[in-house]
Amino acid sequence: MTPDAVLVDGREGTQLSVLDRGLHYGDGLFETIACQRGRARFLSLHLNRLVQGCARLSIPAPAMQCLRAEIEQLVPSSGPALIKLIVTRGRASRRGYGPAGDEHPARVLLRYPASPDDPSLMRDGIVARFGRLRLGENPALAGIKHLNRLEQVLARVESDPSGALETLLFSSSGRLISGTMSNVFVVRDNEVATPRLDRCGVEGVMRRVLMRTATEAGLPVEEMRLTQTDLDSAQEVFLTNARIGIWPVRAIQARSLTPGPLTRRLQELMRPLLEARG
Amino acid sequence: MTPDAVLVDGREGTQLSVLDRGLHYGDGLFETIACQRGRARFLSLHLNRLVQGCARLSIPAPAMQCLRAEIEQLVPSSGPALIKLIVTRGRASRRGYGPAGDEHPARVLLRYPASPDDPSLMRDGIVARFGRLRLGENPALAGIKHLNRLEQVLARVESDPSGALETLLFSSSGRLISGTMSNVFVVRDNEVATPRLDRCGVEGVMRRVLMRTATEAGLPVEEMRLTQTDLDSAQEVFLTNARIGIWPVRAIQARSLTPGPLTRRLQELMRPLLEARG
Repeated sequence: MTPDAVLVDGREGTQLSVLDRGLHYGDGLFETIACQRGRARFLSLHLNRLVQGCARLSIPAPAMQCLRAEIEQLVPSSGPALIKLIVTRGRASRRGYGPAGDEHPARVLLRYPASPDDPSLMRDGIVARFGRLRLGENPALAGIKHLNRLEQVLARVESDPSGALETLLFSSSGRLISGTMSNVFVVRDNEVATPRLDRCGVEGVMRRVLMRTATEAGLPVEEMRLTQTDLDSAQEVFLTNARIGIWPVRAIQARSLTPGPLTRRLQELMRPLLEARG
Repeated sequence: MTPDAVLVDGREGTQLSVLDRGLHYGDGLFETIACQRGRARFLSLHLNRLVQGCARLSIPAPAMQCLRAEIEQLVPSSGPALIKLIVTRGRASRRGYGPAGDEHPARVLLRYPASPDDPSLMRDGIVARFGRLRLGENPALAGIKHLNRLEQVLARVESDPSGALETLLFSSSGRLISGTMSNVFVVRDNEVATPRLDRCGVEGVMRRVLMRTATEAGLPVEEMRLTQTDLDSAQEVFLTNARIGIWPVRAIQARSLTPGPLTRRLQELMRPLLEARG
């Protein structure tokens, strides 16, 4: 599936300069935004996270009004689509890791056709596996959705005879962090918890929406350090990302799980938000 | 300083596809090759490391004969230059971190004009500082020169009123690893040591040349875990990279050092190799 529309710095295009620091160093950020019913879902949250990521990397954030207009230009009038937004520090004006400071951030918008969600995944859940790769820990890069994603690529390259749909990753110090493309939540003794992402991992937009929605419904989600043991003792496990919403996990390798009452309740609470027009 | 010649997949060009996985994920590798006197220095070592990096990332290595011919096409007949070679997994044929397996690796060659080396840096040494950023540890990515270089970018972005030419970096577990663009060697009690790079860092080509040259001269270099204390107790410290050869370190923040006898001996041993035509 390749994009059916691309904007490079606001103009139709298919190419980017070979001097772009996104290519040379992964020096940039991205967002993946789900579109449906003529709207880019949670667009403000995506743009907020982008701005925070730019601040962390000392990249001047692109003008939000301009970015918003370009995204809205790409949103199909109906039907699902995904818009991937890449913002890089822009073309290097000199060699070397250090930015010169005179770079102009580049923005690439790619619209991908999306098939409608498979309702059976939301209902029955998915099979996950454990990745063999451990995520390196670096607070300077934790939380933001930067372009240095070789760890996720390598976790996906690992051989997996089970055909699992997602791979759960631990950090080098043995903490449960996330899936390769999703955030993870566990339910233990009727309490919902999710890994603290201060050393690695990406703070997903759907993770944020879920935490806010759950808290408002009297189900606070605790961000904490979680280990393999915590995961093993969880009664329910589910995953979130901007595209899928909530996927219950029905098996992790040999262990079977049943999508449980808290997962169902959170799915119900989230449904109107996921289907909303705004 | 921008490149004065660029080859994209063997043809003159300035652009790369916005679908390239090098841009999306930093899914690729690079080499920086010094040219002088009509030759690309240590070209075989650079290509060997590239092949090893491709194997580590499960990227099919480009045909070496072709790559070698393209590089030689760019080497200026005289005078110094730097050729940066980027190899990525190529254009994505679908969304997501996992490669489809049908990608064709892309290669970008950029030739940068280089000023002749400043002999005073080789002679008097350079000033280094300690980076505040700690490098994350991931054996899956250690040693190879991949495109995920945000850590190096951020270390360079750190404010540095001292004007140091290089920044020394430690890992999250407190090991001395390297400079942002160089490998580091310390001399203690007449023995040369350099950090083991099994958790992070890049195994530089010049590091390899120096270790081989020193060993052949009866000065074995020990690869070991080195801490701040080891660095503080070193009588001599020097840096290597493919462009600079060997730079003595004459100060690390407030501490002064004198380029010592072992640094000088290694510089002498390396001189013919650095100046050779091959």
